[in-house]
Amino acid sequence: MLAACPARQLLDVLSDKWVCLVLASLASGPQRHSELARDIAGASQKMLTQTLRALERDGFVDRTVTASVPVRVDYQLTPLGQDLAPVTNAVKAWAEAHLEDVLAARNGRR
Amino acid sequence: MLAACPARQLLDVLSDKWVCLVLASLASGPQRHSELARDIAGASQKMLTQTLRALERDGFVDRTVTASVPVRVDYQLTPLGQDLAPVTNAVKAWAEAHLEDVLAARNGRR
Repeated sequence: MLAACPARQLLDVLSDKWVCLVLASLASGPQRHSELARDIAGASQKMLTQTLRALERDGFVDRTVTASVPVRVDYQLTPLGQDLAPVTNAVKAWAEAHLEDVLAARNGRR
Repeated sequence: MLAACPARQLLDVLSDKWVCLVLASLASGPQRHSELARDIAGASQKMLTQTLRALERDGFVDRTVTASVPVRVDYQLTPLGQDLAPVTNAVKAWAEAHLEDVLAARNGRR
C-alpha cells in the first residue's frame, strides 16, 4: 500500500539544492536571469540554466522572453508554482525552527 | 543570502524513499519491526534497519526493546517526529492533488 508514495516524487524534485533556492527566490516575484544569478550566489551559469529548464519542464516556472536589445528574459512562478509555495514555506518554517534539534540528535548532543 | 537553505537539509532527509514510507507508517502509531516490514513492501531487512537507525539518529524515531522471549522491538515517532507530521502531510496532500499536473507538464501533455 505504502510502496507508491507520490510525496516522495515531489520531495525528490524539491530536495535539489538549486531548485530550493530558485523557488525561494522567485517566491518574492518575477526575476530576470541576471537577478536570479546575483541572488543565488554560488550557482554556476550552467547550473542555474539547467535548474530553470527543469522547473519549466515540471510546470513550476514560466519564462518570458522580451525581444529587446539585448534580449530580456524574465522568470516567474506559474499558478502551480505559486500553489506550491505554502508547502515549501511550511517545510522551510519547520526546518528553521527544528533543524538544530535534528543536527544535535545526529551529533549525539541531545 | 539564499545559499544556506535549512529547508534543503530537511528535504534531503525526507526525500529518501524509505524514510518517507517509514514516517508515513509510524504516523498511525507505534509499530513492531515485523509490522513495519510487512507494511512497507519492497524494503529489504537491511534497508529497513538502516532507515530506522538513521531516523533514530536524527531524533525522529524512538526504539523500545522489551526483554521478552523473543525480544520485542517497537518503534514510534518521538515528539519531534510527531511535530514533523503536519509538514509531511502537507507535502503528501499537495503531491496527491497536483503531482499529475507536474508529470503531465514534464511529458509535454499540458
